[in-house]
Amino acid sequence: MRIDGKEAARLLLAQDSFLVFSHKNPDGDTIGSAFGLIHALRALGKQVAFRCQDPVPKKYSYLTQGYQDDPVENPYLVAVDLADPQLFGSTLQEYPEKIDLCIDHHISNKEYAKHLALDAEAPACAQLMLEVIEAMGVEISPKIANCLYTGLCTDTGCFLHSNVTAKCHRVAARLIEAGADFVKINTLLFSSKEKNRLALEQEAISGLEYAFEDRMALLLITQKMLNAHGLTPQELEGLSQLPRQIEGVEAGVTVTEQPNGDYKVSLRTAETVSANEIAGELGGGGHPRAAGCVLKGSWQEVRQTLLDAVGRRLKG
Amino acid sequence: MRIDGKEAARLLLAQDSFLVFSHKNPDGDTIGSAFGLIHALRALGKQVAFRCQDPVPKKYSYLTQGYQDDPVENPYLVAVDLADPQLFGSTLQEYPEKIDLCIDHHISNKEYAKHLALDAEAPACAQLMLEVIEAMGVEISPKIANCLYTGLCTDTGCFLHSNVTAKCHRVAARLIEAGADFVKINTLLFSSKEKNRLALEQEAISGLEYAFEDRMALLLITQKMLNAHGLTPQELEGLSQLPRQIEGVEAGVTVTEQPNGDYKVSLRTAETVSANEIAGELGGGGHPRAAGCVLKGSWQEVRQTLLDAVGRRLKG
Repeated sequence: MRIDGKEAARLLLAQDSFLVFSHKNPDGDTIGSAFGLIHALRALGKQVAFRCQDPVPKKYSYLTQGYQDDPVENPYLVAVDLADPQLFGSTLQEYPEKIDLCIDHHISNKEYAKHLALDAEAPACAQLMLEVIEAMGVEISPKIANCLYTGLCTDTGCFLHSNVTAKCHRVAARLIEAGADFVKINTLLFSSKEKNRLALEQEAISGLEYAFEDRMALLLITQKMLNAHGLTPQELEGLSQLPRQIEGVEAGVTVTEQPNGDYKVSLRTAETVSANEIAGELGGGGHPRAAGCVLKGSWQEVRQTLLDAVGRRLKG
Repeated sequence: MRIDGKEAARLLLAQDSFLVFSHKNPDGDTIGSAFGLIHALRALGKQVAFRCQDPVPKKYSYLTQGYQDDPVENPYLVAVDLADPQLFGSTLQEYPEKIDLCIDHHISNKEYAKHLALDAEAPACAQLMLEVIEAMGVEISPKIANCLYTGLCTDTGCFLHSNVTAKCHRVAARLIEAGADFVKINTLLFSSKEKNRLALEQEAISGLEYAFEDRMALLLITQKMLNAHGLTPQELEGLSQLPRQIEGVEAGVTVTEQPNGDYKVSLRTAETVSANEIAGELGGGGHPRAAGCVLKGSWQEVRQTLLDAVGRRLKG
């Protein structure tokens, strides 16, 4: 049943014991919104425990520092930023059908929960969570503000993406006034670069290859580069955006050599080119503007495969 | 004489003919604030012309498209985001002492104008300009909103920097509601890169120097690099953020060799170090976290001067 944030607050106020769920491979919004709620429920003297299939990524550890689950009995089950039962992950597959309340902002929500508070206009679940917490009459502490601000800025790319709204800037203002340490959070999430990551980027960009009158850009990260800078492919988050951001580039391709010698390919495209069609042709898939695949062979073979596949689309 | 935004509005309303000045090497805030004012004055039927020593950078051309100076007679002289007479540039050196009104947000403002409306809490001059324009009773058109949003997001790095405030988010909300095309502006200013700019960055970063246990990072852009990539110092906006963004760096220094052989220094600092104190010591000025100066001499001399000045602060 669809409900609004105020009704969600009433349901939460009526309970004493909670399990709060975040989605697998958690990001700043699912973690920030969940912990914002957890701190608010605890401020009301309630018992809360947290469930997520995967550990909280190190970069968001400031949100969970010192946190410990309460013992919970016959808990009320709340899913946060969790649009689809599959996103609970395989180890929590017993829960989706039992969820009492889902608080979410994905228009694609599968409506699996008994009650669903959904704001599809909200760029981040954290924006709706602020409404729920305020409707519960809980003061927005700096701790809660940090959680919700993290959600808001994660999902908007720090107010850069097209999902930003006037309301979302007002929510940011509210959270800053409530004591969100936005300087620390922005710096941590958006403007810090490790020295070795910068050095690796510099090395990779020096070998950046353009093709088809600069409409394609191809960035290769080799195992040798990763080893030289003490990095793993998992630590390259965001780098695959780079080739496509270059002016005039319609197909940006980032290739990362894996420890087993495979080449992991990330495609980012302008509206003129379908990334998932190219990736699909090469055995992968994804979204229209962002897709990927894995290729085997020598770099020269992989490079030629990519030039051929992208070239056909650019000419077509 | 110090005045507030409302008094500035009263002074502007009393005049019919204006020259509006932006600082040399103009950025998005001085251009956006100046053109926001220009459109507002024209909406009131006034005659306005614009003066800036240097041409408007190509990336901001969307703000000045189709713009032409009005003929002005005995104009009232307004300086925008112009903290220091020197920033008018050598070709406009006759003007600073004649300026009737300066609208600015730099705490280091030299108070050279007859009247000064200064809001040192505003992260961008555009924030104060919105107050001035609203106090004049002018409706914020989408055109004005684009100008002021450009100023706001330029000077805050799209709401990323430590100068951001709750108020500045509220101003952004107001400008988005007034029709600012923030998606286009954000993409243009913050998520696209020219090919030659990327290549220059790559070359400069390969020479990045660390000092004081990596607490200082020093990036040099030479005329030779600029020439090799067909760029001017004015086209490097934003690059000065980079050294400071490296994890652990408290003082990020970007030095750009000018066509006349001078070295233009941009300082960006963590809260542990005062950028404007360092810049002030070296004959410049600015904000606590972002300041600048110009140094003469050989690169080796300039480099040593900077290492000494920053080193003293890091040790102090």
